Amino acid sequence: MGTVSVAQIKVTPLKRISLAGGDVLHGMKRDEPGFVDFGEAYFSMIEVDAIKAWKRHLRMTLNFVVPIGMVRFVFMDDQGGLREEVTGMDRYVRLTVPPGIWFGFKGLTAPYSMLMNIADIPHDPVEIERKSLDEIHFNWEHMK
Amino acid sequence: MGTVSVAQIKVTPLKRISLAGGDVLHGMKRDEPGFVDFGEAYFSMIEVDAIKAWKRHLRMTLNFVVPIGMVRFVFMDDQGGLREEVTGMDRYVRLTVPPGIWFGFKGLTAPYSMLMNIADIPHDPVEIERKSLDEIHFNWEHMK
Repeated sequence: MGTVSVAQIKVTPLKRISLAGGDVLHGMKRDEPGFVDFGEAYFSMIEVDAIKAWKRHLRMTLNFVVPIGMVRFVFMDDQGGLREEVTGMDRYVRLTVPPGIWFGFKGLTAPYSMLMNIADIPHDPVEIERKSLDEIHFNWEHMK
Repeated sequence: MGTVSVAQIKVTPLKRISLAGGDVLHGMKRDEPGFVDFGEAYFSMIEVDAIKAWKRHLRMTLNFVVPIGMVRFVFMDDQGGLREEVTGMDRYVRLTVPPGIWFGFKGLTAPYSMLMNIADIPHDPVEIERKSLDEIHFNWEHMK
């Protein structure tokens, strides 16, 4: 997978279309930046103040979209690079994360936020590395 | 597009995985029933008691998943066939709708429900037909 840097994470603004009865929110089109292939789409709920961390994919390119609530993502690479992105209803963007980057995220909105990941490959436990929350030192409280 | 019937709508149960901090909900994998191709993924919010109707796609196969709230879908074909499906958190399934079927939906949960559509082609206004709510007679109140 070569050397990968948090600078390679792409941020793509997404449209939210106001409609009577409920808005329509874009997610991803196949001809848009960040689209590699379609492997799987799944949702992850994140309760307010809950943290899900840490995980790294060796092959999967992630495309995170947060249509409900707000989520703080923290990304780390092997060169010591650190990057934070806050996204959701108030900053509606898609985050494209190449393989090889450690990430975690925290829910900022009560009762919960929800992210969608459009991944280029289906879930495969063999390509996932995990560390417990304590194994990577990061002060999640600095952001309060 | 030939003759299409509401009987061709597929219902596929989806997994919801309980996790500390927030559940993970499956959406679609490329090797699963109903997957044709990836064109676009988008979200539609639907406020409680709001109705979005009617629409028909001439080319798009729809894959509806409702991870938030509950939604009542009504489908109609050209042979007079009528079908209703209620889906969402309490009955977590994917609805695969072939092209050629009129559909509308109503939000059943306060403050809103949310559906995702994974479509096999990107949005294209040329392949969409619309009718106003009043143009197709359906008693949306029968379901209360």
